[in-house]
Amino acid sequence: MLIPVILSGGAGSRLWPISREGHPKPFMKLADGESLLLKTYRRAAAVAGSAGEILTVTNRDYYFMSKDELALAKLPQRGSFLLEPMGRNTAPAVLLAAHHVATRFGRDALMLVLPADHLIDQQARFAEAVTAASALARTGKLVTFGIVPSAPETGFGYIESGAELVGGRQVRRFVEKPDLDTARGYLDAGNFYWNSGMFCFSAGSILDEMAKHAPDVAAAAEVCWKSIGAPDGSMLEIAAESFAAVPDISIDYAVMERSSEVAVVPADMGWSDIGSWAAMRELTRPDDSDNRALSGDAIFVDSSNVYVHGDGRVVAAVGVQNLMIVDSPDALLVVHPDKAQDVKKVVAQLKKTDHDAYKLHRTVTRPWGTYTVLEEGPQFKIKRIEVKPGASLSLQMHHHRSEHWIVVSGMAKVVNGDREIFVSTNESTYIPAGHKHRLENPGVLDLVLIEVQSGAYLGEDDIVRFQDIYGRA
Amino acid sequence: MLIPVILSGGAGSRLWPISREGHPKPFMKLADGESLLLKTYRRAAAVAGSAGEILTVTNRDYYFMSKDELALAKLPQRGSFLLEPMGRNTAPAVLLAAHHVATRFGRDALMLVLPADHLIDQQARFAEAVTAASALARTGKLVTFGIVPSAPETGFGYIESGAELVGGRQVRRFVEKPDLDTARGYLDAGNFYWNSGMFCFSAGSILDEMAKHAPDVAAAAEVCWKSIGAPDGSMLEIAAESFAAVPDISIDYAVMERSSEVAVVPADMGWSDIGSWAAMRELTRPDDSDNRALSGDAIFVDSSNVYVHGDGRVVAAVGVQNLMIVDSPDALLVVHPDKAQDVKKVVAQLKKTDHDAYKLHRTVTRPWGTYTVLEEGPQFKIKRIEVKPGASLSLQMHHHRSEHWIVVSGMAKVVNGDREIFVSTNESTYIPAGHKHRLENPGVLDLVLIEVQSGAYLGEDDIVRFQDIYGRA
Repeated sequence: MLIPVILSGGAGSRLWPISREGHPKPFMKLADGESLLLKTYRRAAAVAGSAGEILTVTNRDYYFMSKDELALAKLPQRGSFLLEPMGRNTAPAVLLAAHHVATRFGRDALMLVLPADHLIDQQARFAEAVTAASALARTGKLVTFGIVPSAPETGFGYIESGAELVGGRQVRRFVEKPDLDTARGYLDAGNFYWNSGMFCFSAGSILDEMAKHAPDVAAAAEVCWKSIGAPDGSMLEIAAESFAAVPDISIDYAVMERSSEVAVVPADMGWSDIGSWAAMRELTRPDDSDNRALSGDAIFVDSSNVYVHGDGRVVAAVGVQNLMIVDSPDALLVVHPDKAQDVKKVVAQLKKTDHDAYKLHRTVTRPWGTYTVLEEGPQFKIKRIEVKPGASLSLQMHHHRSEHWIVVSGMAKVVNGDREIFVSTNESTYIPAGHKHRLENPGVLDLVLIEVQSGAYLGEDDIVRFQDIYGRA
Repeated sequence: MLIPVILSGGAGSRLWPISREGHPKPFMKLADGESLLLKTYRRAAAVAGSAGEILTVTNRDYYFMSKDELALAKLPQRGSFLLEPMGRNTAPAVLLAAHHVATRFGRDALMLVLPADHLIDQQARFAEAVTAASALARTGKLVTFGIVPSAPETGFGYIESGAELVGGRQVRRFVEKPDLDTARGYLDAGNFYWNSGMFCFSAGSILDEMAKHAPDVAAAAEVCWKSIGAPDGSMLEIAAESFAAVPDISIDYAVMERSSEVAVVPADMGWSDIGSWAAMRELTRPDDSDNRALSGDAIFVDSSNVYVHGDGRVVAAVGVQNLMIVDSPDALLVVHPDKAQDVKKVVAQLKKTDHDAYKLHRTVTRPWGTYTVLEEGPQFKIKRIEVKPGASLSLQMHHHRSEHWIVVSGMAKVVNGDREIFVSTNESTYIPAGHKHRLENPGVLDLVLIEVQSGAYLGEDDIVRFQDIYGRA
């Protein structure tokens, strides 16, 4: 039994403006329209037995979005979610996942821990590595996956390997991100690997080794686990109070760097952590002038080595070299490839001034679908609202705004005051301020509706929720 | 009597994406929200007697937009318009203007010819130069304004001056754009000036000198002038057939370079032809890192000498040097300052593929106001429509689309089929496909309306006009 445990967290602030706090890196879509999380689900499912389940550990804010990605993947395995009330690093997440796996499948069940925001190009090699890692994990080893380095990278931690084992090697030590000279030495030495952050071990082994090397973390995590209400459900919510008591520490630091039971499976499988726009650029094919465009209308005049991540607008580069241009509906980034790491400084600056653009996209995801603010003016706001088939907004009321709804695609069921009506494509309805109302998509196609709000105050916080099928009332 | 003649033409393709064919350079707004044309009107009006008029020569497509700018300027002078059916260079424009001035004010009336897309910082010096030029023009001279060069510019033509006259100098010769070494020589010589394209002469002098040095142009222009129907009106439309017969030639080439009556008034008045984004950049103040932002949310990280022309979106520059970033709602330009001239190559490329972005902005100007496409989707399109007080769209009908109108500001008078209704703020109405309809702003405030179109075909050409107060039916 091999249970994939997907760790889906991390803001990915170096991938701003596409990755944002409210829509972080795992949900970032690549050129094929698939998110990193969806690709991770597929990759994991392909190596796991279909009898088991796939466990996602993520922040509770990302539950509905994650569930949508899982549904898109159409997997044979059951999906479970362990929802964190706050970010707490990898050791607490892995420990709670281990308790869950041990409870549900026994201490011998193997866990395959995978970050949700990496890319692996060669699935067959990944599968081979997982097979080797599983064999080692069954002997009680805590197995890491070491990526065969292709360059003296200074942005990754390294694993130094020692004596050979069946299917892998012993780990001599973990080393922090090196400087360039040291990284070159590692590359030459031949027994150093990039630490990928992927692991394989049995639930029992990781619980035992954690208890041995980080007893305080293990004890706090156990208390936290016991406080989870319904361990049989597919959605396990972690209580904030007991979770906050678990030390904020990485699995590497808590146990991997201390245990003598750690092994590494070297693998060369087209791995990328998509750590920055420079890594995203590598996924596209350059033209004759080494220019690359992910999408959109890019025009290059007398320019070279320019990467354009477009968003439908025309992007023209004239007489420029060595640039990455990342366009999004409400924010634009122009960055030198060598400074790709510094994009996080922009996010920090936006956060300091509490600017929406560090957190939200123009399109905001909700459990029932999405809304996109098309325009805001004095006393009016226009939104495109998309409601998934079968989904329903809460029964709600606004004190300060009226709403005009025009259905442009699909069919809406609308509660408007005392009436319940159906509004089809090219029909409209009007919700006066103070009226209780609810919007629902009773159909099998997406419902697309234009909402024109009118009123003296149009903040999102002018909402009274009476009923909500997503528990937000 | 001094009559300003404003030559308002030229696409300004080096200032794309802000300047576009449908909204060219004279209408480009500077940081203070005023267009170059408006500033030109103000500048001209201040030196002209209030008894006369201001004549604008422009393409008929820009008539309503030009009239709006003139109205904004609130000038004491009467405004007249000479409307060209096509672009035909400066000689035909000046000749027709001269006929108009001679007819209305006599052959001795002076014309002050000013391009509409230049900037002059020092109005007092401009006024002094005009006074000197007027005195020379009254003696029969064709007077040019020579800008005292501040750098060895290779982008301008030069005027070499000779013997001194009262208030100016004789012109020895006009020279084409020089190479850098030649330009340096001109700068050192001290008697060379930039050719600003501004002129002062009496209507009689220019007609006579043109007849002498370019008789074919003069004759064709006279035929064309005689074909103009109502020379007393304030809007004079030039017939396409006779205008097309006037040779396409500049006033410099037709007469200035040939006549012996040409004088130059040297002037140092903070003149800029705003010929490229590099010139626009010079109008803003640099910060400590030599970064400049015209407007919008610009964030600079480890960057220097970066100019951001924003449009409300966040623009972040990280680790980049020597860049100009020009943002607009549907197109983005990133250009090296040394390649500012090559922006026109982008426009040429867009034109070749007939891409809207060379021609139209997301906001399109109409005689009655503007419309802005907020979003287009399958079978729907959303527009914000702004109608000026007292203005009215044509009485029209669409075969393939219905329209939902929601008033978000002001008051609308709506003809909808057989009914005429008033729609106030936060009210809506529905125009089914096939219904005759008309939208009017009967109020004194701007009317702002959101239009949601629904239908299988949503092209702008699905329109049947029955009546139009702007002559478009």
